[in-house]
Amino acid sequence: MHDPTLVLYTDSSPNGFKITIALEEMGLPYRLVHVNIDRGDHHHADFLALNPAGRIPVLVDQSANIVLFESAAILLYLAQLSGQLLEQAPQARWEAITWLMYHSASMGPLLGQRVHFDCFETQPDPSAQQRYRNLTEHAFGILDQRLAGRSWLAADTYSIADIASFAWLHIAALVGFDFSGHAHLSRWFRQVEQRPAVQRGIRLPAPATGP
Amino acid sequence: MHDPTLVLYTDSSPNGFKITIALEEMGLPYRLVHVNIDRGDHHHADFLALNPAGRIPVLVDQSANIVLFESAAILLYLAQLSGQLLEQAPQARWEAITWLMYHSASMGPLLGQRVHFDCFETQPDPSAQQRYRNLTEHAFGILDQRLAGRSWLAADTYSIADIASFAWLHIAALVGFDFSGHAHLSRWFRQVEQRPAVQRGIRLPAPATGP
Ligand SMILES: N[C@@H](CCC(=O)N[C@@H](CS)C(=O)NCC(=O)O)C(=O)O
Ligand SMILES: N[C@@H](CCC(=O)N[C@@H](CS)C(=O)NCC(=O)O)C(=O)O
Repeated sequence: MHDPTLVLYTDSSPNGFKITIALEEMGLPYRLVHVNIDRGDHHHADFLALNPAGRIPVLVDQSANIVLFESAAILLYLAQLSGQLLEQAPQARWEAITWLMYHSASMGPLLGQRVHFDCFETQPDPSAQQRYRNLTEHAFGILDQRLAGRSWLAADTYSIADIASFAWLHIAALVGFDFSGHAHLSRWFRQVEQRPAVQRGIRLPAPATGP
Repeated sequence: MHDPTLVLYTDSSPNGFKITIALEEMGLPYRLVHVNIDRGDHHHADFLALNPAGRIPVLVDQSANIVLFESAAILLYLAQLSGQLLEQAPQARWEAITWLMYHSASMGPLLGQRVHFDCFETQPDPSAQQRYRNLTEHAFGILDQRLAGRSWLAADTYSIADIASFAWLHIAALVGFDFSGHAHLSRWFRQVEQRPAVQRGIRLPAPATGP
């Protein structure tokens, strides 16, 4: 028995779930290292040597001597490594990359700001709260419109674009951001949620808060 | 003479400059369509049909029938199309993709929030201003540390990671976000700024505000 060549540094959190879900879907062997953010593990020198920005997830591929951070970079890498969850045909492939990036660069960061102002800010800031509610509502609407009459975000195949978007929305739902008024988005959300690999992924390294 | 197969929809703005710079560096022929955000062009039905999120840049490759939005997706596409500005060797390639994503998903969105609270918010919100100043200062520090003893962000080759980061920092500098205290970052910034293709890129479709 060899140690798996892939090592994932992660915590129970939206960007981490993107990768545990992807690895579970792909059936790739990996070793999980729990970086406990509440305990401050992400500030340790060993971890900062992997990601100077001090954030999870980080993936190390020991066989290729490759260290990756940023969930979108890791998803692209795993898709290439496994040949799964990202189509090869150019149109389908670039459609998925476009929606992966819409999540990663546009929607995810706004959800992060909303979580900060709605859940963590000790001094309520109603105008900032309203700003991020509006911006994330707009993003929910964009996904809802995209998913009208379509099973998956890109090219009618389940892909890393769906995984990235779902992982964040799973936490959004847990903290009470309500997107149930968006029928297509809700239908897609339940569809992703039912997948066994997704159910495993959102429980790693430990159950998320909530039910 | 044929029309160029690449059509870029853009405005004079940080995410747009990423693509004008990349196209100028690569020497790819393209047609530029000015989507004037001030005038509301990005809300027109024709444009929303290309990007339902209503944001520039958008790239259409007419020969492949591919429509892309999100600057990071477009940069990856252009690198593949041209075979330039992204190394093939796995270590170098994934290092560049990691730093491209650090800019796109972590740093760029925070700079955007800082611009909003420092430059556009009519009701000053000092605590939100402070939040985004702190977070962008942290990001400047990450890049500065990364560039210590290194010419470029990834694999010691100028790449799409440098272009993405530079394009946003060009605007950050124009609006007065001061990163001059970060010596390595400043040296790198001047080095990128001197490139003729960069000088052309930041003037398209029209001069940015400022000197
Ligand atoms: N853009 C990054 C964001 C990573 C991120 O924000 N990770 C969070 C957990 S979901 C974290 O490590 N937070 C600790 C901190 O920021 O101090 C990605 O997509 O990987
Ligand atoms: N994450 C996107 C951001 C695109 C973006 O924010 N574009 C701005 C100009 S730099 C825009 O179109 N703003 C118009 C609006 O948001 O209404 C990308 O990297 O392309």
